[in-house]
Amino acid sequence: MRQIFAFVMAAIAVCPIVLMAFAASRTEDEATPIFGIKMPPGYRDWRLISVAHEEGDLNDLRAILGNDIAIKAFREGVLPFPDGTIIAPIAWSYVPSEENDKVFGRAQSFVAGAPKEGVQFMVKDSRKYASTGGWGFAQFFDGKPADEATLNTCFSCHEPAKAHDFVFTHYAP
Amino acid sequence: MRQIFAFVMAAIAVCPIVLMAFAASRTEDEATPIFGIKMPPGYRDWRLISVAHEEGDLNDLRAILGNDIAIKAFREGVLPFPDGTIIAPIAWSYVPSEENDKVFGRAQSFVAGAPKEGVQFMVKDSRKYASTGGWGFAQFFDGKPADEATLNTCFSCHEPAKAHDFVFTHYAP
Repeated sequence: MRQIFAFVMAAIAVCPIVLMAFAASRTEDEATPIFGIKMPPGYRDWRLISVAHEEGDLNDLRAILGNDIAIKAFREGVLPFPDGTIIAPIAWSYVPSEENDKVFGRAQSFVAGAPKEGVQFMVKDSRKYASTGGWGFAQFFDGKPADEATLNTCFSCHEPAKAHDFVFTHYAP
Repeated sequence: MRQIFAFVMAAIAVCPIVLMAFAASRTEDEATPIFGIKMPPGYRDWRLISVAHEEGDLNDLRAILGNDIAIKAFREGVLPFPDGTIIAPIAWSYVPSEENDKVFGRAQSFVAGAPKEGVQFMVKDSRKYASTGGWGFAQFFDGKPADEATLNTCFSCHEPAKAHDFVFTHYAP
């Protein structure tokens, strides 16, 4: 009887941890609304397409990474981008670096701070996403997908870049 | 006799091309003075450590890439960096993007333009480079190594970052 009691108490103690782990893995596996895109595993290991700085409300430093299909297409100038292309802009807050400025003897150095605006993905599937130029759009905040309203704004902003298959980023050699 | 003349003329015509090709391959294989570092092949495929923007005379956008040993050390917070670490800052000119600004409706977007300041490398070899904190410094302009005077300035600038093994860049998650 004492053994059963101990087992039940242990189960109650462990249960929230199991549930939390389950919830965390659920979030990472969650797909976006509209486009049904899950966060691609290992994207932080992808190669670099280019870098950028956005002022204004965004106020970030960003790296635009691409999977192997994306890098090959950018380097060879292939347009439209082939199905399977994934482009991932990652943004960090735009932070002055006191440490670097001391060395330069003036305020001039800005570095990547905390991650911002989550991670975004453009996924090429010319059939599945035919109504949005062949691109699916995704954004995740701490692994949680953006809502429908947010994702509905993506394609209209990318339309002016139609001549470059709706992609603003150019490859930095 | 006419055949010999034609052969000699052809050889004279081809010779500069051969010499130019030879010179180009020689340049890529050339090691820096002082540290004797050759340009590491495939560095543009390395993974991203972080991004930065330098104002002032530099006026660039830069990506700091690292080889596998560097990425592992940065992610695990290993200090000092192990021998074999190579860190590669690549700088591009800081260019306003009219194309992007049109979409945002205001001047706010800056992207990577032409490559600047060549490519730089910090190579860790604690024995070989013991007198400069275990780091060898290299810079190449279009594949051609920087001169001794330029490379002699590297270590003194990195000395203030001694607590972080002379490396200014922090990993951007």
